[in-house]
Amino acid sequence: MQHRFHVEGMTCGHCERAVVNAVRDVDANASVKVDLPTGEVLVDSEQARDALAQAIVEEGFQVAA
Amino acid sequence: MQHRFHVEGMTCGHCERAVVNAVRDVDANASVKVDLPTGEVLVDSEQARDALAQAIVEEGFQVAA
Repeated sequence: MQHRFHVEGMTCGHCERAVVNAVRDVDANASVKVDLPTGEVLVDSEQARDALAQAIVEEGFQVAA
Repeated sequence: MQHRFHVEGMTCGHCERAVVNAVRDVDANASVKVDLPTGEVLVDSEQARDALAQAIVEEGFQVAA
């Protein structure tokens, strides 16, 4: 299932990696694509959207509804 | 010995940590203070200035002369 998130607060490649790692902590097999300039994050995962979003928020980013 | 560097390219706390870790890879006992808004990095270490600067550059940042 593909989930699309708009993530605010990513400023650099380290942030991008932090988001990818947060998603992978929830689902090690998730496919994650991050577009840094726009904040768009596409996640292909069978995990619940809320769990994925929460993991990203716990890294210090904002996830738009 | 205190070394003062002006580091360009740090945008967030992850960057700050990357710089601190780069310095600590050269000198595990170094004291490192980073001021993110100004890019000023103060390192207390007996290691050579060049070695410390090079480690920071290898993380993808610019160190002003």
